[in-house]
Amino acid sequence: MTNLMNKLKIEHPIFQAPMAGVTTPKLVSAVSNAGGLGNIGAGYLSAAETRLFIKEVKQLTKQPFGINLFVPEHHSVSQDEIRQSRQLLEFCLNDLHLNEIDMPSTELSTDFDQQLEVVIEQGVRVCSFTFGIPSEKVIKKLQHNGVFVIGTATNVKEAQSIEQAGMDAVVVQGSEAGGHRGTFLDNESYIGLMSLIPQVVDHTSIPVIGAGGIMDGRGVRASLCLGAQAVQLGTAFLTTKESGAHPLHKESILGATEEDVQITRAFSGKSARGINNKFMTTMKIHENDLPPYPYQNSLTKEIRREAAKQQNKDYMSLWSGQSPRLSRDISVDELMDEIVQDYQSVIK
Amino acid sequence: MTNLMNKLKIEHPIFQAPMAGVTTPKLVSAVSNAGGLGNIGAGYLSAAETRLFIKEVKQLTKQPFGINLFVPEHHSVSQDEIRQSRQLLEFCLNDLHLNEIDMPSTELSTDFDQQLEVVIEQGVRVCSFTFGIPSEKVIKKLQHNGVFVIGTATNVKEAQSIEQAGMDAVVVQGSEAGGHRGTFLDNESYIGLMSLIPQVVDHTSIPVIGAGGIMDGRGVRASLCLGAQAVQLGTAFLTTKESGAHPLHKESILGATEEDVQITRAFSGKSARGINNKFMTTMKIHENDLPPYPYQNSLTKEIRREAAKQQNKDYMSLWSGQSPRLSRDISVDELMDEIVQDYQSVIK
Repeated sequence: MTNLMNKLKIEHPIFQAPMAGVTTPKLVSAVSNAGGLGNIGAGYLSAAETRLFIKEVKQLTKQPFGINLFVPEHHSVSQDEIRQSRQLLEFCLNDLHLNEIDMPSTELSTDFDQQLEVVIEQGVRVCSFTFGIPSEKVIKKLQHNGVFVIGTATNVKEAQSIEQAGMDAVVVQGSEAGGHRGTFLDNESYIGLMSLIPQVVDHTSIPVIGAGGIMDGRGVRASLCLGAQAVQLGTAFLTTKESGAHPLHKESILGATEEDVQITRAFSGKSARGINNKFMTTMKIHENDLPPYPYQNSLTKEIRREAAKQQNKDYMSLWSGQSPRLSRDISVDELMDEIVQDYQSVIK
Repeated sequence: MTNLMNKLKIEHPIFQAPMAGVTTPKLVSAVSNAGGLGNIGAGYLSAAETRLFIKEVKQLTKQPFGINLFVPEHHSVSQDEIRQSRQLLEFCLNDLHLNEIDMPSTELSTDFDQQLEVVIEQGVRVCSFTFGIPSEKVIKKLQHNGVFVIGTATNVKEAQSIEQAGMDAVVVQGSEAGGHRGTFLDNESYIGLMSLIPQVVDHTSIPVIGAGGIMDGRGVRASLCLGAQAVQLGTAFLTTKESGAHPLHKESILGATEEDVQITRAFSGKSARGINNKFMTTMKIHENDLPPYPYQNSLTKEIRREAAKQQNKDYMSLWSGQSPRLSRDISVDELMDEIVQDYQSVIK
């Protein structure tokens, strides 16, 4: 039993990754009920939606669960940049028979501050952050209210700054991970988990949670060998029965190879890993001309939503880590059972 | 004890990576004498040099050791392409006070066939290949002469084609690995080892040797957990006392962070991972305009050699994997001892 498991009062060192837009109350609660840590991906939710989501999870589990928030980023962007990027999307509108899409404002804001209040109000026990570090005041306030605070890092320097900010633990995201890269300092960072976990463990003193490419008991054991105190699985939970991912998204992962999974900035303006499709291929040459997150994300929102409705995976963001061959159409209980039996057979 | 260790008659599942230009008879023999598998990096050697090298290793160890050869590649390149790339190197010549460098022929050849004869003649027990798969005839002939034949893959498809070609085992090179990428089918493949090992293990039936970012007992144990039967360490052995790497190369790795290590095509025309320096930074914008390996490699040879002589690391290829923070100035015996004690404490 690791120190982190003790602190979080969880039976198994297994976190379900807070995949925004994919996690459902059923998924989160099923993981927590099975002895892991379910996590709500609240990055795109309003404060009201966040409250409702938490309440639903609470009705389904008495076990600890976590929530993940996106630290707001401030980029200046002009109407011109947005218009230019809008022009690049014409082919999607044609294919999807869309007349027009909403143009994002140059002043996008989120409910971050109000979400934090909801987290405290609802007594959520674990709050993780992606895309940066919240203010010291926020971290202290959460901790003062009994919340365990976790940061997300993609290299040693980011992990160190998370520790220095006073956070309680760090998720280290290997280059294998699906979805958005959590990098927030300097350039893109694609460090494989085999390199990332031990280097962070050696240069920080807070518990490390390994994430990226882990799909089964083998990956859990390997990560614990490298020094992680827990692991976080995204893609493995994305294809479970309880996940809210679009059926075509699940199907794409179940049929993909590791070579189909590529990095793209085209969906959101932020680098993310997903299964290559027409949108990613077509937008590849424009990767460096797109407005930053969250503007590009806002621009493509209606396209992604419409594509999902039309069952057209050419324009959906099919996030996946680098281990799709290990994905399975399975329930959370079955997946958790198999992982737990495997890792417990070796590590006590 | 894994099946592979039995077949190779080695005590520990630890291969020293055959780093061409870095491995010395002392390094190879020290690893084999410590119960691992030392490997000669013979990629750039002539047949005569290869014979001499093997004889020197044999004088230093009675234990099994291996040798690695580069499968020759055939690219057509014009004098014009070579001349254009030569122009891009003017800044190096200025900085190094070189008047001129030799222009490679458009018909570069290697001693590959003669090297194979030497391997058989000298009774080397293990022969691995990088950059492709040798002909069935070559594989059969080696095996007929008692040589254990190993391929190098960076994704499942490559590993499967290595198995189908009749080779005995496969080294899977994770994205973390230093030096040249072994990719030989389709596009560049950067799969992290956490994803690569279990997917290859599930889709092939020959023994898998994990490589990339592994530096100590933790990485060895993790790779074995993932299903590898052995591991191959490059950077960890590169900084040992017995390694033939340039002192500045060792020093650079010992002082580097994981963020300093980048991919470049500029030194050889083939993607490789090393510590960022002036040459890599300056050449970055020309990455796509360079002639393929081995032509670019041949073009920069004198520059690299002269830089090494002048103790100028701006123009040396400082190959390193993504775990430089775990590198140590240590002897092979000390490194092997520590790894063996660590992995044996857990895995019997």
